[in-house]
Amino acid sequence: MLIVMRAQATEQDIAQVCARIQSLGFRAHVMPGAERTAVGITGNHGAVPAEEFEGLPGVAEAIPVSKPYKLVSREVKPDNTIVDVAGVQVGGAELALCAGPCAVESQEQILESARAVKAAGGQLLRGGAYKPRTSPYAFQGLGEEGLRYLAGARAETGLGIVTEAIDVETFDLVEEYADCIQIGARNMQNFSLLRRAGRARKPILLKRGMSSTLEEFLMAAEYILSEGNYQVILCERGVRTFADHTRNTLDLSVVPAVQRLSHLPIIVDPSHGTGKRDKVHPMALAAVAAGASGLIVEVHPNPDRALSDGYQSLFPDQFRELAGEARAISALLRSRAEARSQPAAVPA
Amino acid sequence: MLIVMRAQATEQDIAQVCARIQSLGFRAHVMPGAERTAVGITGNHGAVPAEEFEGLPGVAEAIPVSKPYKLVSREVKPDNTIVDVAGVQVGGAELALCAGPCAVESQEQILESARAVKAAGGQLLRGGAYKPRTSPYAFQGLGEEGLRYLAGARAETGLGIVTEAIDVETFDLVEEYADCIQIGARNMQNFSLLRRAGRARKPILLKRGMSSTLEEFLMAAEYILSEGNYQVILCERGVRTFADHTRNTLDLSVVPAVQRLSHLPIIVDPSHGTGKRDKVHPMALAAVAAGASGLIVEVHPNPDRALSDGYQSLFPDQFRELAGEARAISALLRSRAEARSQPAAVPA
Amino acid sequence: MLIVMRAQATEQDIAQVCARIQSLGFRAHVMPGAERTAVGITGNHGAVPAEEFEGLPGVAEAIPVSKPYKLVSREVKPDNTIVDVAGVQVGGAELALCAGPCAVESQEQILESARAVKAAGGQLLRGGAYKPRTSPYAFQGLGEEGLRYLAGARAETGLGIVTEAIDVETFDLVEEYADCIQIGARNMQNFSLLRRAGRARKPILLKRGMSSTLEEFLMAAEYILSEGNYQVILCERGVRTFADHTRNTLDLSVVPAVQRLSHLPIIVDPSHGTGKRDKVHPMALAAVAAGASGLIVEVHPNPDRALSDGYQSLFPDQFRELAGEARAISALLRSRAEARSQPAAVPA
Amino acid sequence: MLIVMRAQATEQDIAQVCARIQSLGFRAHVMPGAERTAVGITGNHGAVPAEEFEGLPGVAEAIPVSKPYKLVSREVKPDNTIVDVAGVQVGGAELALCAGPCAVESQEQILESARAVKAAGGQLLRGGAYKPRTSPYAFQGLGEEGLRYLAGARAETGLGIVTEAIDVETFDLVEEYADCIQIGARNMQNFSLLRRAGRARKPILLKRGMSSTLEEFLMAAEYILSEGNYQVILCERGVRTFADHTRNTLDLSVVPAVQRLSHLPIIVDPSHGTGKRDKVHPMALAAVAAGASGLIVEVHPNPDRALSDGYQSLFPDQFRELAGEARAISALLRSRAEARSQPAAVPA
Repeated sequence: MLIVMRAQATEQDIAQVCARIQSLGFRAHVMPGAERTAVGITGNHGAVPAEEFEGLPGVAEAIPVSKPYKLVSREVKPDNTIVDVAGVQVGGAELALCAGPCAVESQEQILESARAVKAAGGQLLRGGAYKPRTSPYAFQGLGEEGLRYLAGARAETGLGIVTEAIDVETFDLVEEYADCIQIGARNMQNFSLLRRAGRARKPILLKRGMSSTLEEFLMAAEYILSEGNYQVILCERGVRTFADHTRNTLDLSVVPAVQRLSHLPIIVDPSHGTGKRDKVHPMALAAVAAGASGLIVEVHPNPDRALSDGYQSLFPDQFRELAGEARAISALLRSRAEARSQPAAVPA
Repeated sequence: MLIVMRAQATEQDIAQVCARIQSLGFRAHVMPGAERTAVGITGNHGAVPAEEFEGLPGVAEAIPVSKPYKLVSREVKPDNTIVDVAGVQVGGAELALCAGPCAVESQEQILESARAVKAAGGQLLRGGAYKPRTSPYAFQGLGEEGLRYLAGARAETGLGIVTEAIDVETFDLVEEYADCIQIGARNMQNFSLLRRAGRARKPILLKRGMSSTLEEFLMAAEYILSEGNYQVILCERGVRTFADHTRNTLDLSVVPAVQRLSHLPIIVDPSHGTGKRDKVHPMALAAVAAGASGLIVEVHPNPDRALSDGYQSLFPDQFRELAGEARAISALLRSRAEARSQPAAVPA
Repeated sequence: MLIVMRAQATEQDIAQVCARIQSLGFRAHVMPGAERTAVGITGNHGAVPAEEFEGLPGVAEAIPVSKPYKLVSREVKPDNTIVDVAGVQVGGAELALCAGPCAVESQEQILESARAVKAAGGQLLRGGAYKPRTSPYAFQGLGEEGLRYLAGARAETGLGIVTEAIDVETFDLVEEYADCIQIGARNMQNFSLLRRAGRARKPILLKRGMSSTLEEFLMAAEYILSEGNYQVILCERGVRTFADHTRNTLDLSVVPAVQRLSHLPIIVDPSHGTGKRDKVHPMALAAVAAGASGLIVEVHPNPDRALSDGYQSLFPDQFRELAGEARAISALLRSRAEARSQPAAVPA
Repeated sequence: MLIVMRAQATEQDIAQVCARIQSLGFRAHVMPGAERTAVGITGNHGAVPAEEFEGLPGVAEAIPVSKPYKLVSREVKPDNTIVDVAGVQVGGAELALCAGPCAVESQEQILESARAVKAAGGQLLRGGAYKPRTSPYAFQGLGEEGLRYLAGARAETGLGIVTEAIDVETFDLVEEYADCIQIGARNMQNFSLLRRAGRARKPILLKRGMSSTLEEFLMAAEYILSEGNYQVILCERGVRTFADHTRNTLDLSVVPAVQRLSHLPIIVDPSHGTGKRDKVHPMALAAVAAGASGLIVEVHPNPDRALSDGYQSLFPDQFRELAGEARAISALLRSRAEARSQPAAVPA
């Protein structure tokens, strides 16, 4: 159920709606919009009677929500959500570019990476301090030391930091250092971690699981929003199929599919999405053309010596070229879209 | 094994190489290139001794081919193949746009479609006269009548015709009318049909099978080339995965993957590749950005009344807009690529 | 639409129903059952009026069929179909065992295989004279020579022959020699071939396609039945998934799923279904436990010298052991089922 | 690297080997076998020099381990591991049967379920107190209250308890009550949870992830063993594919594949593996025939009123019948295997 307030509804009207929701044992989610505020209801099993609300002052209408996901749904919030990550608007008019190595390996490596990303036009720096690895014997990340190196790179370059949290135990530490906290594909249905992310006060980057349907992906985001954190960026990073010419199959059709059903921004990771350096550039451009709000790309100052994922990391020069072409396509599509929405000029 | 001739090799030299190949019980495939001619050898089980050829006049070198596919491989022919379909160069600098209804339903419908495609900037007309249908009770196409209507639409609009052949029995008829003969996804491993296509004197559009690996896709093309028809266009049209937000999962990464391994051009079908009208436009643009040489799109003058696939067919106006944006992205990428390959201007 | 006749309906009643169906422009399929006959109607687009038939003599009722497949459906024919292949009842109480090499390679090889299969308790001999191969340069089978060798093996051992037809061109020849004609996985949606199989007077073994849904599988069988050949055996042989520990993923759940929806018998091919010799035995037993009506297994007198699929072929001794265990499980389940359906003994 | 001790090696010899391993900065895993002890080495990056160990007293040989998984590998431990869960030997000669509802819903429900499972011949009781649910608004389990009800059911019936732990936070509580702790499919690569499970003193039931390869599955188990808990049971529960006639595709071929590569026992969950009640029985029998060491089956006293997964839960009577047939097949295969391994009787 969604309670849509009138444009002229007061703060007091909204508070009264929330109080009524709570008195019924449910949970209220106030969602301010460009023109008017809506209040989502969760926690109900079965239907909520609309008449409980339609007589309250300031209420325009009470709308049943037909999808299993509610707070992430466009039914509940028609306007696009723009997530601010250290000043970068993800989901806004400009393409957001995040880049950096798979893992933080040393202070020098992450500093060098950050300078290269910055010089090539990147706006956010990625790099894992905690790494979920298939093998217990593989490099698992530098932990807090890695987080400190990331903070150092931010201090020098001004780039916001996107880094992964892999469990509830170390989440506090990641939240302290990061500008945006990544939940990785393997944890997309780690519901305890999602709840913790929902209580964070930093934006969350949620990666799609390897065999996640669109509905499961949106439901995972719903876990985060349902705890009160509405700053969620979705990320397509490839799904698992029979195809063997790439490490995963990058499913770009999920970009317009998410945009139709949800107000949350979606970006694309063409590095994990292909697993091969020479496929990153074309698939990154394809992602932008499909309408993605941003890219997250693996870039390493010396890919051949990377401790992980070197074969899919770009050289800094390759990223510079990619950033330029991606922005050019983004600008082209934006100007086309603006032209479409302009009324045709009328000759005098 | 590939015999590469010297630039100055004569016709006679080439003929002598072919004769030697045949005398060994193998088959020779003469492949003229921009600078020099190569001769492929097929039909051998196991290695062919290089020394049999290296002493012959005009021979530069004899190269073993490491892939299971030979004639489709870039090892054998480094230059891109450009396929001429009724004057449209598929695989050349310009994006090729083919559009039209799923099936030819009537003379009026195909004429109206052809005019709309032409007006919107399309260069080739698609439309099935023979339809492979999951159900024996579904509309199976108009057969030769449909082919005649297609020919009529060509006569009026000048658009070249791309239409499907579904079996060897009706192949002759399709070959008579079509400018390019489509082999559908379900027939990608119908080897008898592929052999027949290899003996056709018209270009072939070969669609990737629903669960085809890249190697199987190239091997299917190899069947066609091995019979002597080198005019083959590959087409990605989505593969079958667990994902349920689209009818198929459009695997755009196969575009750069094909281009790396093969000289054959590859285009994309975003209509079957998504199965949903609102996904066609973004995925078509994504395909162009990924480097596809063209698009094949379902367009119907009245999608809601289409006998098949109406829900994935564009309205003519939607196609016009798509064509404009697709060409703009294509032009952008081409100018970028040209800039990269230009030597920097030297001041006097 | 299905017209169910009364138990006492006469031949003349049935003929009159068929005549009425034909007079409406449709096609009648007479399906005799254990207790009464039904007449299926195909060829209609949209509903057939029940009242057209319900007044005719001998008609019990006219039932609309809710599935897209009709003739293969249990709605239309509740009793199991038993297909007789050279005296072996496939779909009956006894497990049917078909075995032999992937391809017929020579007279000696197929004779030796047939003797081994016979000695180990096999009832039918498999072996391809026409082989669909991924590569145009691979061994494509001995053609009619292979068919003659198969016939020779039958003459000596008495084993019925199951062999594949790969196209309409060579179908007549295969039909002449075979006791049961296989349509391979790659041809499951080769609709022209299916129609030809529907006009054959030999039973058809239809293999499930690599990425075929259950509905598509049944619709492929419907093509065959719709042409008048009701002797169809279905075969699960593994589907294509991300899993890489077997060549295909054997989907045994399709056995009870087919049995619920269709009256046609289904058998399992654990050789292609796993692609690895050491997985054939356990998965063959699993297939029998899941309720399969038979097995088709690759057995070669000398797997290491096989021209194709040697790594998945059993040695004759392995097949003997497999046949024994498979029959024991089959007998166990049969006796259990009989015990369940017996009324409890009443003490005097 | 694996250090294999001689049969007559002393405790002191083993301790000396461990000390040497630790002095090199690695970790030693003592693995006693039926005839002799082996010591696994983990924590090394790159090769460990064999000569460091081969001269030590009691050492038979130092073997490099070729797989990425070590402790779970048959190379390291050739004998089958038998896991004791509350007196039930999983991986031994007898089939292990675990059954019960998806979730603990009330004291009465779990008691009634336990009695039914016990009466039908089940040996272990399953039931979730903590439920990982796709929706944040779905029933999430009774938590500790549910654990207490499970303990009550154990007290009354004597059945050992198998229940899931979904995060590190609540793991202690689950460990306190459970006889075997389940790690669910969605958490198969929740590495923090796996490490915690590796420090538990109860056996772990590890379910295969929805799109997990065999290698990833074994690596997940390796995480648990690498922390010192060698009591791990693997469980196949279906993988995600395109097939839509079952909720998941039960991949029974992983049973012999695991048994070849690993010494750990593997059981099968035909309830989640099919998601449909009428498929549970045939696929459970198939699992036993494929060689699974046990079954875990959803049984509910009143499936139609279950809070979750009711449509895939068996009625108690159905489970009784299943248990009987499963044990009969298991006994049949065991007697066959014994007959094979007996020397033929020698006449006097």
